Amino acid sequence: MTAGDSLRRLRDAKPLIHQITNYVVMNETANATLALGALPVMAHAREEVEEMSAIAGALVLNIGTLSPHWVDAMLLAGRVANERGIPVVLDPVGAGATTYRTETAKRILDEVDITVLRGNAGEVATLVGVDAEVRGVESIATGSDPADLARQAGRQLGLVASVTGVVDHVSDGETVIAIENGHPLMATITGTGCMSSALTGCFLAVNRDAPLAAAAEALVAFGVAGEDAAQGANGPGSFHVGLYDALAALDPDTLDGRARVS
Amino acid sequence: MTAGDSLRRLRDAKPLIHQITNYVVMNETANATLALGALPVMAHAREEVEEMSAIAGALVLNIGTLSPHWVDAMLLAGRVANERGIPVVLDPVGAGATTYRTETAKRILDEVDITVLRGNAGEVATLVGVDAEVRGVESIATGSDPADLARQAGRQLGLVASVTGVVDHVSDGETVIAIENGHPLMATITGTGCMSSALTGCFLAVNRDAPLAAAAEALVAFGVAGEDAAQGANGPGSFHVGLYDALAALDPDTLDGRARVS
Amino acid sequence: MTAGDSLRRLRDAKPLIHQITNYVVMNETANATLALGALPVMAHAREEVEEMSAIAGALVLNIGTLSPHWVDAMLLAGRVANERGIPVVLDPVGAGATTYRTETAKRILDEVDITVLRGNAGEVATLVGVDAEVRGVESIATGSDPADLARQAGRQLGLVASVTGVVDHVSDGETVIAIENGHPLMATITGTGCMSSALTGCFLAVNRDAPLAAAAEALVAFGVAGEDAAQGANGPGSFHVGLYDALAALDPDTLDGRARVS
Repeated sequence: MTAGDSLRRLRDAKPLIHQITNYVVMNETANATLALGALPVMAHAREEVEEMSAIAGALVLNIGTLSPHWVDAMLLAGRVANERGIPVVLDPVGAGATTYRTETAKRILDEVDITVLRGNAGEVATLVGVDAEVRGVESIATGSDPADLARQAGRQLGLVASVTGVVDHVSDGETVIAIENGHPLMATITGTGCMSSALTGCFLAVNRDAPLAAAAEALVAFGVAGEDAAQGANGPGSFHVGLYDALAALDPDTLDGRARVS
Repeated sequence: MTAGDSLRRLRDAKPLIHQITNYVVMNETANATLALGALPVMAHAREEVEEMSAIAGALVLNIGTLSPHWVDAMLLAGRVANERGIPVVLDPVGAGATTYRTETAKRILDEVDITVLRGNAGEVATLVGVDAEVRGVESIATGSDPADLARQAGRQLGLVASVTGVVDHVSDGETVIAIENGHPLMATITGTGCMSSALTGCFLAVNRDAPLAAAAEALVAFGVAGEDAAQGANGPGSFHVGLYDALAALDPDTLDGRARVS
Repeated sequence: MTAGDSLRRLRDAKPLIHQITNYVVMNETANATLALGALPVMAHAREEVEEMSAIAGALVLNIGTLSPHWVDAMLLAGRVANERGIPVVLDPVGAGATTYRTETAKRILDEVDITVLRGNAGEVATLVGVDAEVRGVESIATGSDPADLARQAGRQLGLVASVTGVVDHVSDGETVIAIENGHPLMATITGTGCMSSALTGCFLAVNRDAPLAAAAEALVAFGVAGEDAAQGANGPGSFHVGLYDALAALDPDTLDGRARVS
């Protein structure tokens, strides 16, 4: 685990993370990106996404409040990122809940080379054809063990699958890394999944050739920040505030030692 | 008052609350919904709103930053909710401030069976033809006593009117319930009105046959949370944070005893 | 410096500040406007922006997440504001980062009489043809001293240029006012630039005939609030929360004495 080293390089390089994401969490993922040490930029117009993605260190696509113009923009931005070798994260928010979300996520997977697919178990299961129950944007149940699901998704889709839950599982189709960092309060606020996707983009920007490691390191960093933020939190509101403080306070020197990875 | 019992059932059932709402408060109403104990989902594309509403426990329509595609989506979602007997809340943000808002709110009232209309006095007065002064999204004055206004709106529009202000008034056109819970700090942050509409949706989802009670209980719960959040707040920022902590900490066993209802 | 007097009048008059702004910061600029003491309203539909702007005390245009319909709305609203003598602030977020942003900012400057242009050095330099490096929405470097840049922009564009950075510089093309209030934590959260534009609108609404003074007073007030919020903050999250508390707690009686202006 070299999450500490990646964080150090990220804060030094301050990569630009282009995010085409949902209305609910734009402020939150921008602030999480900034708190970690990278530079967020939100831009969704078809008139500019290609130019913006071309100068980014990573591109994060999130379908949490999708509509046709936004999907077009995601495809345009994704193609440019692919041409330039810029890593792309897809967060298939709510895949499985409506046909439109499922089909859009599949279309993006078809038309863009996704580096990391970051979703909950229900969303990822839906995209690989495993039975799943998704209610709105919550994963209720899947017919598969999460480690197996991550491996299957990684292999079947030809990418790194990052399946988050009580324990997170990241896989390139062969190796599976389980990450046990985090805190139950992370499930009490909206947007922690989306934030983890944004942070995955940050770590990818400084680890282009090691997406499996980058995806795991992002979840370690976010989980450790969640553990720190839970100290002294009185509920979801104060936890949410503390999460940004904790991301900014992450210490590269101690981060690897706190990783609970297997 | 059985707000405590409703809250207990809500946390047990975790109903999905489909919200087609404004850009300003999406994160806030999602987090308030989660903090109370229900599951929010935001979806506004015409391509998916019918499917999403069909699986929801309640639908909340809010015109705070409306535009034509969004209005279309609200009408589509509302019709599906009506067909399935799913309760619908309308928050007519800014009705009275511009012709577009007033006409859109009236159009939704015409085309969708609204269960609860939740607005400030100026917005509700506008929709029943009572003189009102609305500046932007603030109600300045109306030519009617708020209890009378709630009763008139309930009767004239054939729904439960939930008119919030220093004292809230909820009426089905016959009975008027006045709720005195709350705190002046609630007026110092944006989105508390929108949050109260979202929470009304939550209580309706577990009280389909008692919309008057559900609307009153939601305002009691929100008002009590506001009272708790005001303890130790240093201003609007810390109050806002405390509000989510307080919603999550609401105790079903003591809630009814704290209701100030007449 | 009469920032204290302006703040007193602002809290008394509670002007309506119509903001057509970006998705990332809508909640934040609305809450900053409220905390200071004015009334925010967000409305972007072409169907209503003219009516809303016509009743506003100031109009704030911000291109942070622009798209064609929103640009149309900004032009419509701007023309109405001009006809009525309502001051207009332009925040050219990301001008220089993409052609679309640069051209849109120039188009708004061409078609609307802008009262105050509030941006970072890279954005403002781009708009007056000075070499600049803009990454996403961050200004990295410009080929000009910031005081000279503010003066040049003021003169060349015929408006008040408000160039914010470690030290802020405001100029009408002749006089340059430097403002040293503020705190480094302000650069650690997204939206502080956008908030400063919103607050500039608030001060303009009560100082229509003195835009240079209004722009400077807004930055003094915001900078002083930033200094107060930094007390006891543990990082960007708690600083962000404290900023609203501090804006609401600004004391008109001591504000002028705390201004660090030259």
